[in-house]
Amino acid sequence: MKKALFASPQDAESAFYEALTKADLDAMMAVWADDDDIYCVHPNGARISGVESVRESWRKIFASGQTLRFQLRESQTVQGMMLSVHSVYEHVTIAGETRPRGPMIATNVYLRTERGWRMVAHHASPVSEPAAPTVDDSPPSHTLH
Amino acid sequence: MKKALFASPQDAESAFYEALTKADLDAMMAVWADDDDIYCVHPNGARISGVESVRESWRKIFASGQTLRFQLRESQTVQGMMLSVHSVYEHVTIAGETRPRGPMIATNVYLRTERGWRMVAHHASPVSEPAAPTVDDSPPSHTLH
Repeated sequence: MKKALFASPQDAESAFYEALTKADLDAMMAVWADDDDIYCVHPNGARISGVESVRESWRKIFASGQTLRFQLRESQTVQGMMLSVHSVYEHVTIAGETRPRGPMIATNVYLRTERGWRMVAHHASPVSEPAAPTVDDSPPSHTLH
Repeated sequence: MKKALFASPQDAESAFYEALTKADLDAMMAVWADDDDIYCVHPNGARISGVESVRESWRKIFASGQTLRFQLRESQTVQGMMLSVHSVYEHVTIAGETRPRGPMIATNVYLRTERGWRMVAHHASPVSEPAAPTVDDSPPSHTLH
């Protein structure tokens, strides 16, 4: 199978959300590093580690048949030579629904490999607080850890 | 103020959880990089960015007066030269309660700075699924993204 090479973490991130939108499992797994240390935390979920388990988790999600649209906002990056950490708000709309679901916040980690930049970690969680910042960036109050 | 130098990401991580347990705000902020790009996602929360906002969020948490105990399990690391990404299950017990709360999963990111390894990102989320893997590592079913 011909695998895509991603020249930048941003290229890998674009391919990740495109694969999610298209529910394309092969395209999704082409974004991930071929490594047992990769991990994925779906919203409210436990950690899933390794290529086979990560693939199986996406297969089940894609098998649900829902078509998702993602609007990404407020991307923020910490960039190293070999690793790149992106934080992004995911505003998800499910096809057939008129209003977006509450936002998710995702931490996406990319590794520079011999085959280009690949995802090594995806940690997504729902933002269930009121007043998540979208235009107003004043800090909301927090009482939980 | 004398600031600690952390020789490894693990040293910084140990100091982070010690500061949390002691509700020591200065010790907590000594772990974080002095950088506007740092960010923190508390469980169920929105993203908080920058030193001042991150500090204020911990101040409010510590002001609640709860004493927390953390048991860390199943640590997993992706290590680069300048960045280190740790995933860890946090089993939290609140003083006065006999049973631990449901586990959290945290992604902790450390940056190698001129002043040693420092935290640049903390993203924690509750694991609300049943059957979070602790001994059995078979993947749980997922229907959400």
